Amino acid sequence: MKKNKTENPSKLQVIPLGGLEQIGMNITAFRYEDSIIVVDCGLSFPDDDMLGIDLVIPDITYLQDNLEKVKGFVITHGHEDHIGALPYVLHELNIPVYATRLTMGIIEHKLEEHNLLKKTRRKVVKFGQSINLGQFRVEFIRTNHSIVDAAALAIYSPAGTVVHTGDFKVDYTPVFGDPIDLQRFAEIGKKGVLALMCDSTNAERPGFTASEKTVGRALDSLFEEHVNSRIIVATFASNVDRVQQIINTAHKYGKKVVVEGRSMVSIIDIAQKLECIKIPENTLVDIDLIKSYPENKTVIITTGSQGESMAALSRMASGQHRKISIGPGDTVIFSSHPIPGNEKAVTNIINELQMKGADVIFQDVHVSGHACQEDIKLIYTLVKPKYAVPVHGEYRHLRAQSNIAKDLGIPKENIFILHSGEILEMDDQGARIAGKVPVGAIMVDGLGVGDVGNVVLRDRQHLAEDGIVIIVFGIDKAAAQIISGPSIVSRGFVYVRESDKLIDDATDLVYDEVTEALERGVSDWTKLKNIVKDVLGDYVWKKTKRRPMIMPIIMDNNF
Amino acid sequence: MKKNKTENPSKLQVIPLGGLEQIGMNITAFRYEDSIIVVDCGLSFPDDDMLGIDLVIPDITYLQDNLEKVKGFVITHGHEDHIGALPYVLHELNIPVYATRLTMGIIEHKLEEHNLLKKTRRKVVKFGQSINLGQFRVEFIRTNHSIVDAAALAIYSPAGTVVHTGDFKVDYTPVFGDPIDLQRFAEIGKKGVLALMCDSTNAERPGFTASEKTVGRALDSLFEEHVNSRIIVATFASNVDRVQQIINTAHKYGKKVVVEGRSMVSIIDIAQKLECIKIPENTLVDIDLIKSYPENKTVIITTGSQGESMAALSRMASGQHRKISIGPGDTVIFSSHPIPGNEKAVTNIINELQMKGADVIFQDVHVSGHACQEDIKLIYTLVKPKYAVPVHGEYRHLRAQSNIAKDLGIPKENIFILHSGEILEMDDQGARIAGKVPVGAIMVDGLGVGDVGNVVLRDRQHLAEDGIVIIVFGIDKAAAQIISGPSIVSRGFVYVRESDKLIDDATDLVYDEVTEALERGVSDWTKLKNIVKDVLGDYVWKKTKRRPMIMPIIMDNNF
Repeated sequence: MKKNKTENPSKLQVIPLGGLEQIGMNITAFRYEDSIIVVDCGLSFPDDDMLGIDLVIPDITYLQDNLEKVKGFVITHGHEDHIGALPYVLHELNIPVYATRLTMGIIEHKLEEHNLLKKTRRKVVKFGQSINLGQFRVEFIRTNHSIVDAAALAIYSPAGTVVHTGDFKVDYTPVFGDPIDLQRFAEIGKKGVLALMCDSTNAERPGFTASEKTVGRALDSLFEEHVNSRIIVATFASNVDRVQQIINTAHKYGKKVVVEGRSMVSIIDIAQKLECIKIPENTLVDIDLIKSYPENKTVIITTGSQGESMAALSRMASGQHRKISIGPGDTVIFSSHPIPGNEKAVTNIINELQMKGADVIFQDVHVSGHACQEDIKLIYTLVKPKYAVPVHGEYRHLRAQSNIAKDLGIPKENIFILHSGEILEMDDQGARIAGKVPVGAIMVDGLGVGDVGNVVLRDRQHLAEDGIVIIVFGIDKAAAQIISGPSIVSRGFVYVRESDKLIDDATDLVYDEVTEALERGVSDWTKLKNIVKDVLGDYVWKKTKRRPMIMPIIMDNNF
Repeated sequence: MKKNKTENPSKLQVIPLGGLEQIGMNITAFRYEDSIIVVDCGLSFPDDDMLGIDLVIPDITYLQDNLEKVKGFVITHGHEDHIGALPYVLHELNIPVYATRLTMGIIEHKLEEHNLLKKTRRKVVKFGQSINLGQFRVEFIRTNHSIVDAAALAIYSPAGTVVHTGDFKVDYTPVFGDPIDLQRFAEIGKKGVLALMCDSTNAERPGFTASEKTVGRALDSLFEEHVNSRIIVATFASNVDRVQQIINTAHKYGKKVVVEGRSMVSIIDIAQKLECIKIPENTLVDIDLIKSYPENKTVIITTGSQGESMAALSRMASGQHRKISIGPGDTVIFSSHPIPGNEKAVTNIINELQMKGADVIFQDVHVSGHACQEDIKLIYTLVKPKYAVPVHGEYRHLRAQSNIAKDLGIPKENIFILHSGEILEMDDQGARIAGKVPVGAIMVDGLGVGDVGNVVLRDRQHLAEDGIVIIVFGIDKAAAQIISGPSIVSRGFVYVRESDKLIDDATDLVYDEVTEALERGVSDWTKLKNIVKDVLGDYVWKKTKRRPMIMPIIMDNNF
């Protein structure tokens, strides 16, 4: 029984299932009556304390519980923090995916790797085009970002329109395609927008974000300055425009280009097929052929700008790359900034490259892909939303944007800094937090999705700190005596060959304590194990001030 | 038999035992004939891959091998990376220590904690004063730095003079004491200096380092702006001048001050006793009494500006501090920059503080304690050394300083970027690398000094990544059969309650393989263990794509 929408519209719910108070794992559900759409489906990279974890994906219990209502995934752009969890989620839920050309190209590559391409319904959407998803209509609006084909979304519902910027910047002179469609933002704004969900990444930074083209000019003058060097440029694999500019500059200076690094090769390949990058003829050469050109006539574009230890640049710097090694005469340009947390890794690789004799340039060859304060103000002023819902950022970034919104005259009570899982409900009566849905971070380790939880992580942390001491002994239950062992083995604790006495004394101690306990009539193994843990733990602490994991193993010898 | 020094002087050797190509662990030996002096004796903090390690100290084999020649430790200032290894080294070698007033105060506090105060000979040296140490004379020259009483050293030997700047900045308007003694640098330079060993920390930064006084002005205007808040200022424990300025500003605004955080309390205590800080009467109050003042009349100066999880600020932010909790109405000022590697920890705490409702200020309330490029040029120009030996920094910093030296006209062949352990030998014939001495990093974990080496660290890394799987079984050697087990226990691998089948199948597999091997006549336990490692490792990898440490334990049941 449908209600008369215009007279008494239902509520529009915005439910972030991840991505708030963190960088990464962007996924937001929008619900109106029986229709749910989901914007983005990203992963995040593990925190330092998530030992051994490969990546983290969102808990999608809410979507599973409402599966029949979910009309589709609407994806803003092709970065891992917006698409990386798709294969894992689509493995559980078969839901159609909507995205622009390059975004879909990258998604399809992922689905292929996960054997999901055939079963997943997909639709490439053009800028300006709308798609109908249940009670929603979603329009894709062109923006600029550090990847081609990024989109903002206008999400139309009977309860009103939400504009979601995706990740964006305002670039009046982009390298590929057109500038952000500011006219359309204005037009939609003029008609009335309920809420703006705007990228907060750079909300702490004053001023405007510079155009990608400025990097091209910086590259030109660096190539000029280092005209006799082989030039190696490290940047983000997915920054197709950056790669385009490096290739343009190389071409201008008559140099051949090699693209190196698995992820970069695959994205450039996709971009070429989709004509999102234009490579002049005879410029790109195979890595195996680069040696046939004079070194100062070659350019290598590579991954590894974040100091990732397995990436191509890192292997080149440490001499472990099979085809390229760095030395005097090379100029290495970091066309990137370290992402927070990667500073030390980046500095290590800069040191390594310089020690090899290379010239290293790591300043002023990068611009951000995210809007700074003045750009954010521009979007707010065009869209003129009733409610402000800052997204994409840690709490400090969300709060910085909320301060901007306040400065622009949006009343404090109309600004919502949401926590993941909170339901923001909007209707003609107002907006409010109306409950919570389950959310969480599912850890992926190897093939295991979610089988590493807090217990396992806590154990890994403990093992990492002080190692493990295992003590094995056999007991004859009937005779109530130790009949084999105890024998102690340890890993990650001390170098045993130099700690013979410590181990011997500990073994004797455990023997005495267990024997004494058996004589007292203790026969419960859990009790015996706890006695061993206590006495051995105390002894080790006293002698070393360390707390290795103590693991007693009792063998039953009553066979 | 002494040679005639003036006619045929011997060689002067400079031997860095640590501190080059790294931040921390500064220690440099100077040798002339039978005299050795050692400048500084610092620790470094563990790299990310040194799991569970508390701190790292230098290998002093070279000093131990030449013990009778070592005349003393000459210390430039009281930071951990210059004095932190002293207690460990003095535990091995009884050598006198020379330092300025506050530096010695901090050293003595350390020695007391290590029960070394009585046995260590010590001498407090004044600026301008010289001490004779064998063939060396060492003069202490006043500089400025982020700790009071920092000294540069003029090291006079028959082969010439070396000027070692220590860590320094040029501050024309320091908070405490006088500006750096530029006249003395000039005077010594005029007489002829063989080599300058200059701080490289900020050698990549153009311009001049701002005066500490500028922070005072920034604090004044922040206190003005947040006059109705309780103010919490986080900074480095040892920055006595910074604490002085915060106290001055607090006093000006009629606020009471609490100092919180063990290391800060102890350094301020030492500084007060030595009159290196002047605290207006009735300004400092005990933390237990702070509640009796209105919140907006109180200031808390605290440690934890680097996001250290156990420091006071972190505990306040997470609500785990017993006496102070943060909330709306608080203004938290970070009077510090994150040290490379700490960015993420700092950002986490900023988020936490903002979530609690505090205003957080983390920009423009700090200046560096190290000289920037123009300051470095000034010192070079005053000292006019023949040789340049950049010190204190990673390779990138040393190289940046060497570029500065080149720009100033020092010939390339007179600039030495040393590696730790290299012997730089100088005489009237020239300068050259003349061999190597053993150097290294000794890891301290709890009470253990050096008992954690690469094997243990590698094991910790392995355990941290994927945990451990232990498989125990008993064998009757005579009967060549398994008589108990196998039984599998794991930690940090998978959550076992949800992986019953994996464990059961693995157990069966091992049983079959071992039985089969025993039947084949394999009786060597090492061989049996390797069989188990291989088969279980392969199985686990196939099922999980993880590589936990596999640890087979065989119990001998032939009793």
